[in-house]
Amino acid sequence: MMHTGTPVTVLGLGLMGGALAGAFLRAGHPTTVWNRTTAKADDLVARGAELAASPAAAIASAPLVVVCMSDYDAVADVLGGPLDGRVVVNLTSGTPSRARALAQEVAHRGGGYLDGGIMAVPEAVGTTDAVLVYSGPRPLYDAHESTLGTLGTGLYLGDDAGLSATHEMATLVLIWGMLDGFLNGAAILGTAGVSATAYLPLAQTAIGTVAGWLPGYARQADNGVYPADDGTIDTHLTAMAQVIQESESLGVNAELPRLVKSLAERAAAAGHGASGYVALVERFREP
Amino acid sequence: MMHTGTPVTVLGLGLMGGALAGAFLRAGHPTTVWNRTTAKADDLVARGAELAASPAAAIASAPLVVVCMSDYDAVADVLGGPLDGRVVVNLTSGTPSRARALAQEVAHRGGGYLDGGIMAVPEAVGTTDAVLVYSGPRPLYDAHESTLGTLGTGLYLGDDAGLSATHEMATLVLIWGMLDGFLNGAAILGTAGVSATAYLPLAQTAIGTVAGWLPGYARQADNGVYPADDGTIDTHLTAMAQVIQESESLGVNAELPRLVKSLAERAAAAGHGASGYVALVERFREP
Ligand SMILES: NC(=O)c1ccc[n+]([C@@H]2O[C@H](COP(=O)([O-])OP(=O)(O)OC[C@H]3O[C@@H](n4cnc5c(N)ncnc54)[C@H](OP(=O)(O)O)[C@@H]3O)[C@@H](O)[C@H]2O)c1
Ligand SMILES: NC(=O)c1ccc[n+]([C@@H]2O[C@H](COP(=O)([O-])OP(=O)(O)OC[C@H]3O[C@@H](n4cnc5c(N)ncnc54)[C@H](OP(=O)(O)O)[C@@H]3O)[C@@H](O)[C@H]2O)c1
Repeated sequence: MMHTGTPVTVLGLGLMGGALAGAFLRAGHPTTVWNRTTAKADDLVARGAELAASPAAAIASAPLVVVCMSDYDAVADVLGGPLDGRVVVNLTSGTPSRARALAQEVAHRGGGYLDGGIMAVPEAVGTTDAVLVYSGPRPLYDAHESTLGTLGTGLYLGDDAGLSATHEMATLVLIWGMLDGFLNGAAILGTAGVSATAYLPLAQTAIGTVAGWLPGYARQADNGVYPADDGTIDTHLTAMAQVIQESESLGVNAELPRLVKSLAERAAAAGHGASGYVALVERFREP
Repeated sequence: MMHTGTPVTVLGLGLMGGALAGAFLRAGHPTTVWNRTTAKADDLVARGAELAASPAAAIASAPLVVVCMSDYDAVADVLGGPLDGRVVVNLTSGTPSRARALAQEVAHRGGGYLDGGIMAVPEAVGTTDAVLVYSGPRPLYDAHESTLGTLGTGLYLGDDAGLSATHEMATLVLIWGMLDGFLNGAAILGTAGVSATAYLPLAQTAIGTVAGWLPGYARQADNGVYPADDGTIDTHLTAMAQVIQESESLGVNAELPRLVKSLAERAAAAGHGASGYVALVERFREP
């Protein structure tokens, strides 16, 4: 393998960190790696990675240091040393407030900081299918955009280091809602002997349909006007009550429909029974 | 307008029933309509529909009777009379058990019964974008497939009249999970001054990404094997805890992340902390 790109360091070789280091290696970047459990580096070393003996040694090896750990406490553990002139790109999931605090700490120790989030599974990393969001000083992003482009499609969100975590939080809630909705639906259909695989085409159609509503729904959420041309919250409430009742009689979990009904009931109580579904956004904006 | 197709009757001219009747009219079907509140028929009559004076008169006017009401109680009210030789296609949302009961009642009164569900908003009705599912005796569906094709893309699910409501329930839970996830995400980003419209491209990307996972996830759900190559439930739990904590400190609603965390915690307690996300399907299969 030819090593022609910018040297990079990857700290953390879990499912995701391993995929990140693998993508850098495939693209020809001289790649230094470190992981608490050394054995996880074996495969990468066989493919040309340099194994550093400590986080500090790994950080010293390259101008760009990509970090992907379980959480920010683990990140703080490995970023303990000096960081002069290093740019740290932290792809660990976390909160906006911790991202901002870490940005300050890295700056105090002479480093640059970009926060990022990965909207992909490890196997998509290194392809354009993987979307990664970044936030922090624009000049730092511009300087490393092409190297980071190795990991997937990059989306720069703004100067505030917290923006990437905020977008990641928002997207995770959407992903969990979608996945739980799909698995709940599969459980319902399972009671009628229909497999999840047989459910798939209809589920994909429904997903495509809802995706088609979202541009209009996003405008409604922004404008605070919720026309009901496509069905009212009251109509949804009737269907929600039926789904709960039937789920109970089928013996499947009804917690998700119960939650969506409780939110819709509060929207109706706030005067939005005859409004469209997007009126619910006001309920999500309050604790 | 030329009236060349099979005559049809539409009972119920709410948001959805009005769209159904409009699609039949546009396609040239002689269309008889009835609605409790007569004024809702005005526009359709101006476009060539025949207004019947009673449900019974409407039912007498055509071999195919499409019904779309708020709920099954309303349907029972309008289907009180004789039904000899009529085929009733009930597109009202309801439960599988009520669909089966109504199928029996219609049969007792000499009619044929298909149950259906509409996976579309009214404005999509009459285009191939609208997907409608049907269940009930196959010969009835075959006989009316082309007329029903006027309403959108038809999907026949099987002989059991309840199947359509079961699929509709499953799909509704998916749609609600997706919509609530999107609106919750929009509320989170709103705290950072990011509009729902600005969030849209990332949300659509995430939806496309998740849709790409579903074929594999459906197989996992069917096989009961949940490999964690793309991240464990424990990793999701860490992120869920962060989203809840940050939602609370931002002052936005945290009920949806709290529910997904509670389900994931139970999956972890059942020994699936190191499994992939699909292991959650087992939690949805129990009350
Ligand atoms: N997997 C996905 O699909 C996915 C998708 C998007 C985002 N992410 C995010 O990526 C991050 C990593 O996820 P993952 O799936 O790679 O998790 P993982 O497989 O559990 O890997 C966790 C990594 O963190 C290290 N670590 C944990 N505590 C540490 C400590 N105190 N000191 C040093 N190292 C420590 C682990 O080292 P050891 O090997 O020594 O345990 C391992 O390298 C998470 O924030 C996750 O939310 C993951
Ligand atoms: N809208 C959508 O996007 C959508 C999508 C998929 C499925 N659906 C399903 O389609 C069905 C109708 O929804 P919709 O949006 O059209 O609701 P809607 O606008 O509220 O219309 C309800 C209809 O039911 C009639 N009705 C209610 N109670 C009645 C009674 N006791 N006797 C006679 N008629 C009665 C109403 O008559 P009046 O005009 O006299 O009140 C009206 O025609 C629901 O099951 C819904 O779940 C709707």
